[in-house]
Amino acid sequence: MDISAVNALSYEDFVNTFGNVVEKCPVITAAVWSKRPFVSLNALEAAISDFIDELPKSGKEGILRCHPDLAGRDLQRGTLTRESRREQAGAGMDALTSGEAERMARLNEEYKKRFGFPFVICARMNDKANILLQLSERCQNERAVERARGIEEVKKICRLRLQSLLLTDGANKL
Amino acid sequence: MDISAVNALSYEDFVNTFGNVVEKCPVITAAVWSKRPFVSLNALEAAISDFIDELPKSGKEGILRCHPDLAGRDLQRGTLTRESRREQAGAGMDALTSGEAERMARLNEEYKKRFGFPFVICARMNDKANILLQLSERCQNERAVERARGIEEVKKICRLRLQSLLLTDGANKL
Repeated sequence: MDISAVNALSYEDFVNTFGNVVEKCPVITAAVWSKRPFVSLNALEAAISDFIDELPKSGKEGILRCHPDLAGRDLQRGTLTRESRREQAGAGMDALTSGEAERMARLNEEYKKRFGFPFVICARMNDKANILLQLSERCQNERAVERARGIEEVKKICRLRLQSLLLTDGANKL
Repeated sequence: MDISAVNALSYEDFVNTFGNVVEKCPVITAAVWSKRPFVSLNALEAAISDFIDELPKSGKEGILRCHPDLAGRDLQRGTLTRESRREQAGAGMDALTSGEAERMARLNEEYKKRFGFPFVICARMNDKANILLQLSERCQNERAVERARGIEEVKKICRLRLQSLLLTDGANKL
């Protein structure tokens, strides 16, 4: 799909297509439709990024709270979104050893208890070992640092989801 | 559920319980969790209302775009959220005559074409005749007027959904 085809979409088709580029936040996609036409994929991505940046702290934390735990309950119950399922599987989150799963669960709980939002990382840019390492290290940060860091990761996830949807050879993959 | 029980909820339970008080916008619920504790139902409602008011115009339009058409495709296909299904049924939207259905569909399209977001009205506070009348009249407004009016209706819907979830005798009804 090229950018002129994107610009021609009704808001309903736009939200149906891109509504989950920010996990469980179709309202963000629905909001940036107001900013069309976009000159490029980068411009669409920038509009989403700008919208997120203008939210208050609570709104940024709200975005993080819409994300599932890595290797958490949604993965076990099969209730992940399609995009999350593929991303978590790609990073090996569905094939942890029992020791890794226990460690992941314990660190996820520690992180959520400390910050009041979940650990968010772009799974497609990391492998299992790196995710566990980052989770362990990031548990030590300050809340403001993790809010900003989590949002950076949200934007990386968004970029890759957009690319999968827009690039011709990826249009049927996501 | 009383307000102290609400304040004791984890963000996950809070979002699971109240995530759809603004239709398909769990990020709003997830954001206001940052503002707890709430002294009352009214305080929780006010936190949601304040969050919405602070959004840019595009964000308010985004909220409206997350709402289904009244008596539209989602109702016909059975893909409405549970809350919307009950509200639309309560206002008789699932029992229109063919003439009413045709008129509703035509006016919905006219409204969306004119404003770039759907007609939103608190169905639980209106009946079929009044909804058709309002839709017809509101098609004539300016975009800024309708953006504000739609958001007022979103807040009425939110208040009633919150009440249904929080009031003891309504806890099992929504």
